[in-house]
Amino acid sequence: MNPLDRFAATPEPPYYAVIFTSLRNDVVEGYDDMGSRMMELAREQDGFLGVESARDAAGFGFTVSYWRDAESIRAWKMNTEHRAAQAQGQARWYEAYATRVAKVERAYDFGLG
Amino acid sequence: MNPLDRFAATPEPPYYAVIFTSLRNDVVEGYDDMGSRMMELAREQDGFLGVESARDAAGFGFTVSYWRDAESIRAWKMNTEHRAAQAQGQARWYEAYATRVAKVERAYDFGLG
Repeated sequence: MNPLDRFAATPEPPYYAVIFTSLRNDVVEGYDDMGSRMMELAREQDGFLGVESARDAAGFGFTVSYWRDAESIRAWKMNTEHRAAQAQGQARWYEAYATRVAKVERAYDFGLG
Repeated sequence: MNPLDRFAATPEPPYYAVIFTSLRNDVVEGYDDMGSRMMELAREQDGFLGVESARDAAGFGFTVSYWRDAESIRAWKMNTEHRAAQAQGQARWYEAYATRVAKVERAYDFGLG
């Protein structure tokens, strides 16, 4: 994978971002499979624009997903399979997390051509 | 440092976020010092609320800073010392980056008490 492909190719603003900041515990079992399934499911949702993520060796990281509008985020939040994954996340894999829903007003980049 | 202290203690929305997604090159020299200085300088700015950051072993990462309003972000963007740092960042340390300025409308968390 080209490392530049880790940047989401988002359209001109306005659009929305969900900033998910999280601290993982040490439990490995099930986490990657669930993450892959949630990414697959997110990509199928109406209004999904892209996602970026990174986590450091201490288990602190971000998943920032981008969406067309607030409605598409609301629908994704309420998705039944996603809700079950959120509950499992709290019970099994996350020490703590913060989720912020934000409307992107301006964007600029460097080195992305 | 308590790992939970890596989460920014932000107020109730609305407030603003600057999502800085970046890919580092391999140049180490000068980077940490500049990062420390920019964090120190950011904390002095009117309207600064907090910051969260993480980068993975491949050099892909996030710095998300939080601000009271769009005006405080504009002032920070135009800060003379910060502008010099941005130019050095492009010349020396970053392969690519994307910056998105977004208004946080809703927020919730888990495990942060």
